[in-house]
Amino acid sequence: MEVGRSIPRVDAADKVTGRAKYTDDLCPRPVLEAKILHSTIANGWVKSMDISAAQALPGVVKVLTCFDVPDIQYPTPGHPWSVEKAHQDVSDRKLLNRRVRIYGDDIAAVVAEDEITARRALELIRVEYEEYPVVLEAEQAMAEGAPVLHEEHPDNVLAKMDLRTPMPESDFHSVEDVLACPAYYQFRGRYDTQQVQHCHIENPISYAWMEGGRIVVVTSTQIPHIVRRVIGQAMGIGWGSIRVIKPYIGGGFGNKQEVLYEPLNAWLTTQVGGRCVRLDVSREETFQNTRSRHPISFDVAAAVDGDMRLMARSCTAVSNQGGYASHGHSIVANAVTGFRQLYLDRIGHHSTAYTVYTNRPAPGAMRGYGIPQCNFAVECMMDDIARERGWDPKAFRLANLMPLGYVDPFNGITCHSTGLAECIEKGADFIGWVELREKYKEQSGPVRRGVGMACFSYKTGVYPISLETASARLVLNQDGTVQLHLGATEIGQGGDTVFSQMAAQAIGIPTEDVHIVSFQDTDTAPFDTGAYASRQTYVTGKAIKKVGEEFREKLLAYAAELFPDASGLDIRERQVVDGAGEALISLADLAMNAFYSLEHSVHITAEDTNHCKENTFAFGCCFAEVEVDIPVGKVRVLRIVNVHDSGKLINPALAEAQVHGGMSMGIGYALTEEMKFDPKTGRLLNGNLLDYKMPTSMDHPELTALFVETDDPSGPFGNKALGEPPTIPVAPAIRNAVLQATGVAVNSLPLSPQKLVEEFTRGGLI
Amino acid sequence: MEVGRSIPRVDAADKVTGRAKYTDDLCPRPVLEAKILHSTIANGWVKSMDISAAQALPGVVKVLTCFDVPDIQYPTPGHPWSVEKAHQDVSDRKLLNRRVRIYGDDIAAVVAEDEITARRALELIRVEYEEYPVVLEAEQAMAEGAPVLHEEHPDNVLAKMDLRTPMPESDFHSVEDVLACPAYYQFRGRYDTQQVQHCHIENPISYAWMEGGRIVVVTSTQIPHIVRRVIGQAMGIGWGSIRVIKPYIGGGFGNKQEVLYEPLNAWLTTQVGGRCVRLDVSREETFQNTRSRHPISFDVAAAVDGDMRLMARSCTAVSNQGGYASHGHSIVANAVTGFRQLYLDRIGHHSTAYTVYTNRPAPGAMRGYGIPQCNFAVECMMDDIARERGWDPKAFRLANLMPLGYVDPFNGITCHSTGLAECIEKGADFIGWVELREKYKEQSGPVRRGVGMACFSYKTGVYPISLETASARLVLNQDGTVQLHLGATEIGQGGDTVFSQMAAQAIGIPTEDVHIVSFQDTDTAPFDTGAYASRQTYVTGKAIKKVGEEFREKLLAYAAELFPDASGLDIRERQVVDGAGEALISLADLAMNAFYSLEHSVHITAEDTNHCKENTFAFGCCFAEVEVDIPVGKVRVLRIVNVHDSGKLINPALAEAQVHGGMSMGIGYALTEEMKFDPKTGRLLNGNLLDYKMPTSMDHPELTALFVETDDPSGPFGNKALGEPPTIPVAPAIRNAVLQATGVAVNSLPLSPQKLVEEFTRGGLI
Repeated sequence: MEVGRSIPRVDAADKVTGRAKYTDDLCPRPVLEAKILHSTIANGWVKSMDISAAQALPGVVKVLTCFDVPDIQYPTPGHPWSVEKAHQDVSDRKLLNRRVRIYGDDIAAVVAEDEITARRALELIRVEYEEYPVVLEAEQAMAEGAPVLHEEHPDNVLAKMDLRTPMPESDFHSVEDVLACPAYYQFRGRYDTQQVQHCHIENPISYAWMEGGRIVVVTSTQIPHIVRRVIGQAMGIGWGSIRVIKPYIGGGFGNKQEVLYEPLNAWLTTQVGGRCVRLDVSREETFQNTRSRHPISFDVAAAVDGDMRLMARSCTAVSNQGGYASHGHSIVANAVTGFRQLYLDRIGHHSTAYTVYTNRPAPGAMRGYGIPQCNFAVECMMDDIARERGWDPKAFRLANLMPLGYVDPFNGITCHSTGLAECIEKGADFIGWVELREKYKEQSGPVRRGVGMACFSYKTGVYPISLETASARLVLNQDGTVQLHLGATEIGQGGDTVFSQMAAQAIGIPTEDVHIVSFQDTDTAPFDTGAYASRQTYVTGKAIKKVGEEFREKLLAYAAELFPDASGLDIRERQVVDGAGEALISLADLAMNAFYSLEHSVHITAEDTNHCKENTFAFGCCFAEVEVDIPVGKVRVLRIVNVHDSGKLINPALAEAQVHGGMSMGIGYALTEEMKFDPKTGRLLNGNLLDYKMPTSMDHPELTALFVETDDPSGPFGNKALGEPPTIPVAPAIRNAVLQATGVAVNSLPLSPQKLVEEFTRGGLI
Repeated sequence: MEVGRSIPRVDAADKVTGRAKYTDDLCPRPVLEAKILHSTIANGWVKSMDISAAQALPGVVKVLTCFDVPDIQYPTPGHPWSVEKAHQDVSDRKLLNRRVRIYGDDIAAVVAEDEITARRALELIRVEYEEYPVVLEAEQAMAEGAPVLHEEHPDNVLAKMDLRTPMPESDFHSVEDVLACPAYYQFRGRYDTQQVQHCHIENPISYAWMEGGRIVVVTSTQIPHIVRRVIGQAMGIGWGSIRVIKPYIGGGFGNKQEVLYEPLNAWLTTQVGGRCVRLDVSREETFQNTRSRHPISFDVAAAVDGDMRLMARSCTAVSNQGGYASHGHSIVANAVTGFRQLYLDRIGHHSTAYTVYTNRPAPGAMRGYGIPQCNFAVECMMDDIARERGWDPKAFRLANLMPLGYVDPFNGITCHSTGLAECIEKGADFIGWVELREKYKEQSGPVRRGVGMACFSYKTGVYPISLETASARLVLNQDGTVQLHLGATEIGQGGDTVFSQMAAQAIGIPTEDVHIVSFQDTDTAPFDTGAYASRQTYVTGKAIKKVGEEFREKLLAYAAELFPDASGLDIRERQVVDGAGEALISLADLAMNAFYSLEHSVHITAEDTNHCKENTFAFGCCFAEVEVDIPVGKVRVLRIVNVHDSGKLINPALAEAQVHGGMSMGIGYALTEEMKFDPKTGRLLNGNLLDYKMPTSMDHPELTALFVETDDPSGPFGNKALGEPPTIPVAPAIRNAVLQATGVAVNSLPLSPQKLVEEFTRGGLI
């Protein structure tokens, strides 16, 4: 078995020795440098711009402004695209914007011989604005008389949805009836999440030049084939006239599932005669001008019977979309869907969701795609109900979990496998749930401890909400080794390693005989929409399995030509064997024959598409033990464990590492991270890694990752999502631990010292 | 029709603007520099080497010698390889050689932080040799007691062949009987050709590093897939662990159909921890250490009847192979075969050929592969016979041409089409043959004029002597354009342009909608043995046609899914049309559907191999008018025309350019070029572009290229060889013009002033 083995990452040696090539390592020098001028207002219009001094600066090649760019609005999110207009993403920005909607909007660009000259030229550009009031909060933006951001949405609501599950025959006419029924315990709550950033270590960077009349862009992206498409859309040219190359990338987490600066970079090279132009986005720009996690508020209600059974729930989510649509409504839609799916409402469920434009930097995709937000709401709610009812939060959850065979009434996504109950028991055992819950029941004094938990469910790919399609190609070498050629991308998660294992498994050869083509070149790489959701091991995995089996059949068909009398041919230990297990020929000799035969020379390759029309749920939970220093509002995570049901693990060691990374991100989300804005100007106040507080290794306890391996029948190798899930349950588990420790229910993130002191004061603890 | 159009080269704009990337343009800086130590003897052994001072020089990373390299002898020529040992190339060199066989042999290498340090280090290496006598001429090397170069060949004869055509029933027992028969006119002659170099403007250059445990080599080569193979052989590692990338190259002409320094470069990176090492071969090294055209001597005899009919001929060719086997015996074998094929011997033919080791730099493949040499012999012979018999040389040739339907008795290569007679008439008309031959018949004085001609035949690919196999891949883009992905290479000849036209023709789309992937990366590029012989438009062309038709069928099959009621689907003007010619859908919309359909998403690509088991003859002739200044031995070419039957022309303008280049090379071969050696030491005396006399544009008359377009039934688009042929007939045509002008038959090349003055003196003209 090649899948299921903890082999070292195929890129490990190159990455630890510094030999691995990232975009900037590949960029030729000297190169023209592009820098962007950002608006100093958050809402309004650029009335005029004086670039004469900038253009006159020696070393400046070209100054281009929002008055020069093509009059094309284009969509930026990394969705698969659709030929149906109704399913296409919102196109609401240009390469450079006259209409300014965030503080720091892109309004001009300088191309110069060096970076310092480019920066100096920016300072010489004079801008005259027409300025409008600023609105940063979704509820304010929805209010009467609020400044309007996009004229086609006078209420600033980009989209709204209202979904009610079909209800069984009963005396209730609506979910609201159930929620008002005195026979049930009634709960109402409000939970708020904050805006945070991905903080990938490599900022967005690209360089572009022209060749053969076409544009070539090398970029740090998760989605090279989509970058190609969006550049074509933004410039209004045929997508085939663009070539995108993706080297290794230093993190993405969803922020590089958006096509923000590649189109500008591509256009800039066309404005300087096709010379190579580098566009290196700074950390400050990454915070201000790229994407982030949506702040979403949840107003929730629940009706529960005396047997701990959820009867009905409602959830109204309001998502702050910032100045641009980005992924549009799909993230908050995912959030309310996720809120609904994890637990079973016996009678009904009512979801309402709003996506609202404000003058904040526009959030977009970030690991979990709305689910960390809804999971905070639902898992706080579960603990809050359990606390009020005096139930064990674990028992309450176990009484309501999504059952095996569950089919979502709206999208048909089916629970093909679930190990969630087992995950919960395993996590509870690890943390010592029963003992600790008992031990920390009654405490006093300034430093108290608590233990908390949270569960999640997570759909693996995006089917049927979006298209799921992936291609793969295999190429035989003369020594019997193969190249695996994909459009799916390694983004630090170990994709290349598990793809190699999958191909090896499907063909029947050792993983070390599979050479993955790590860099995608859209001219030659098979099509794949790329790394987002938690789709690749599932969707691309199915393509690899399909093509691997086709490739294997081609090998065996060639062997059958050489051994016409043999039957039951198979591949074992780099040999073709017959039905009796006798070795007939090594794969290397088979390959040499296929290449160089004077009778029948054929270069064995296989390439095919798998259009994936399946999806499945992954599950898991987090248990956290914390110590709270009440007077200073400090939470210390003492122990933390994530337990995951991601189906069969392709590479257990990599799976564990993936969980560790996600847990770390969850700890930052829980305790320290938050983008802060000046309420008057809309300017981001902490857009750098000094003022924005990511947790460091010093802030982490030992991170424990455990697994319950189910064998998902829909997964290519029994596997399902693991990319995003680890980050989801961490924040509510910590919050619930703080709740046990202190009795104070903190209903917004993060649990920062400032906020905790305020909450503890309000709760009478200080 | 896309083939047959004189569209501009697809790489034209990039090449004239300097935007096209060659190997050295892509090499990262800083990079480690490798320099090679060359022997200062031509024959002997390296007894010992003292590298201590070199190794101690600051900036030197590593010094490696012939005592350090793997004990593996490997083959260097760019043949397709064979799984049968008898058909494999000779392996007679190591990465660095202890046994020295040429002056300047590779005996050590320095890797340093910069070039100057590397060169200084070379000077610090002390070498002790065991020295043997030097032999530079083939006949001397074959003589008793000559120094032995390769111990397994004590007579220095690498290979010998002796072939007699089957003879019809007659009174003659052998060709020699015919050649001795007094009923026929008997002719005996001897013709000698010189050693010349390709003089591609870009010297061999490569750089190599390690990545993912594998070796990556970027190199200026004609044959990336073969480079991969030879590196694997030279290092004794799996060929799949090597990746070769070929950018644009600045000429090759056969010299880059040999794998000389890439294996050393690949090995050097493994010796410095995988760091990137650049190996830039100087012009002097290119002359001394890479390949050249074989000097071949021809002893010929012919018997001709009174009706100008050739009855029998014999040809004994001795080829000077220099110190290493390189392409081995195949070049002189090709030469005697070419000598035989062009004209028909009614009774029989006897070919003998020797490949002889000497201490010269080893010749290898060069445009024409032995045929320019044999063509000089056969076409001088034809004129010499005609002159002695008082026949018109043109009439004599026309009486003996290879007829349509001719089948070579040894290799079965068939004359599927011939326009040679028509070429001859066209060329004669252009130059004014009848008038000029008459006008220049009787001349006196120091400056005289003459007109001469020469014909040739040339087989297109290498089948059945070697494997002919090629793969191609086509990839659809969302805008209906496609990528054409090949292992066949653009080497300056315009391959990318005609390949694009062929693919467009086969699919039914405009050529501008085909984006050729110009650079080959052996990890992903389809397999093709590369650019050599005149094979690519024929052999690769067949693969492109096959795959283009498969791709077209896939497009139409997808269209049939969208329009199940339509029939007779076809592609016209970027539309799918039905049998009535009604447009159903544009290719762009079809592509968008195929990519993004929620019903059936498929990324349409096609990839396949064509194992080519056909070959065919191309033909042509050259007519030259010269003015000879007898006292100073100066030949001025006044007018010159090549007329070619290369079947259907894919791109007439490129075909014309190809002919111009070949004619220029032929003029240098005829008049000025010759590698000269110090007879005592074997040192090359003129190994640079100052002392080696290539003709410049000032030495050229207007070059005229004419065509007779036959439609070859075996060619993919009616086409056949054009790559090498233009250079073939030029030297004998000029020599024959000098013969008419002066009455002096110069029987060796080049017709340099020194030699002409000697010959004219001997002939009594001076």
